[in-house]
Amino acid sequence: MLKFFFGPHSCALASHIALEESGLEYEAVKLDLVAGDQKKPEYLKINPKARVPALVTDRGVLTENPAILAYIAQTAAKAKLAPLDDAYAFGKIQSFNSYLCATVHVAHAHGRRGYRWADEQSSYDDMKRKVPETMAACFELIETEMFEGPWVAGADFSIADPYLFTMESWMGSDKVDPKRFPRLLDHRQRMEQRPAVQRVLPLHA
Amino acid sequence: MLKFFFGPHSCALASHIALEESGLEYEAVKLDLVAGDQKKPEYLKINPKARVPALVTDRGVLTENPAILAYIAQTAAKAKLAPLDDAYAFGKIQSFNSYLCATVHVAHAHGRRGYRWADEQSSYDDMKRKVPETMAACFELIETEMFEGPWVAGADFSIADPYLFTMESWMGSDKVDPKRFPRLLDHRQRMEQRPAVQRVLPLHA
Repeated sequence: MLKFFFGPHSCALASHIALEESGLEYEAVKLDLVAGDQKKPEYLKINPKARVPALVTDRGVLTENPAILAYIAQTAAKAKLAPLDDAYAFGKIQSFNSYLCATVHVAHAHGRRGYRWADEQSSYDDMKRKVPETMAACFELIETEMFEGPWVAGADFSIADPYLFTMESWMGSDKVDPKRFPRLLDHRQRMEQRPAVQRVLPLHA
Repeated sequence: MLKFFFGPHSCALASHIALEESGLEYEAVKLDLVAGDQKKPEYLKINPKARVPALVTDRGVLTENPAILAYIAQTAAKAKLAPLDDAYAFGKIQSFNSYLCATVHVAHAHGRRGYRWADEQSSYDDMKRKVPETMAACFELIETEMFEGPWVAGADFSIADPYLFTMESWMGSDKVDPKRFPRLLDHRQRMEQRPAVQRVLPLHA
């Protein structure tokens, strides 16, 4: 059976929702990221990057949301979480997820993990001040250029939706006004009504 | 026919090599990133993110290396650039490419594009100083934990190899000593011997 490692308030929420939507059997294991569970030797054997999410399969471990999300869609083909037989449509979803992973999440991380890229407190303060601006710019691009509606990729719910929802849920702490992005606000509210999201969300508090 | 937009010394090298390896027909268009071609209205219609790479297909545009690389592998299945019928093996390659996209490339970018995440010159200087340390830490993880050998995913060349090669080619400018990573140095040298790489590399100078 699949074993899924996550932490509260982390991007692992995306893959967790997709697992719950997929109908796959899995066991979820919650790490205490503040206490440093992700740096303990037993977890470093699973993911030497000391990060979540990690999905342990009977073949080995997968990390990084875009990879785990695509794996879930391919493994649970009946759940129709991605257009698996259409390389272009699948590519659009992967483009979207790559943008969330490498640009939006990275912009967010500068508000709290500046030590990854700099050493001085003044740099951390500078980075933190800029987060509302960079995150708003990301959401602006998504709202106006990338989001098809009513779901990310158009008519069909896909693995891009729980990932976008995860970033949308950070708007408050990143001081971005959700009312500036009505299509994304509507998306977030519809996500919150899905039974899979309602089952998973309390575990991430 | 596919139309591929790239810039010299950019991460677009990864998808460009994969296209050349794939046997697909494509036209390559070089942008002058210093002159700002990527910010001109005609290019923003193609990619509103003002970045390279972008791959124009007859269906629309794909952006972001991990997405373009997977699309190339799926579209040119005969070239066997990814294990398309094995969700776990494909997932491992996608995990690797996500790490390059969201962690390694991002660490590199702090040496020259700190303005994306901060506003003060002192922060840019701080970020720039840290690049040799963060990039070396990334290559250490790849060399010891992620790289299977002789290619990224083991015996078979895949879409992860030109992407890793692109990052390896940045070691010099990022002040990382390649001799610290003998397996990656060997990988880079074998990549340089491939005809597809020899055809593409001069266009990126």
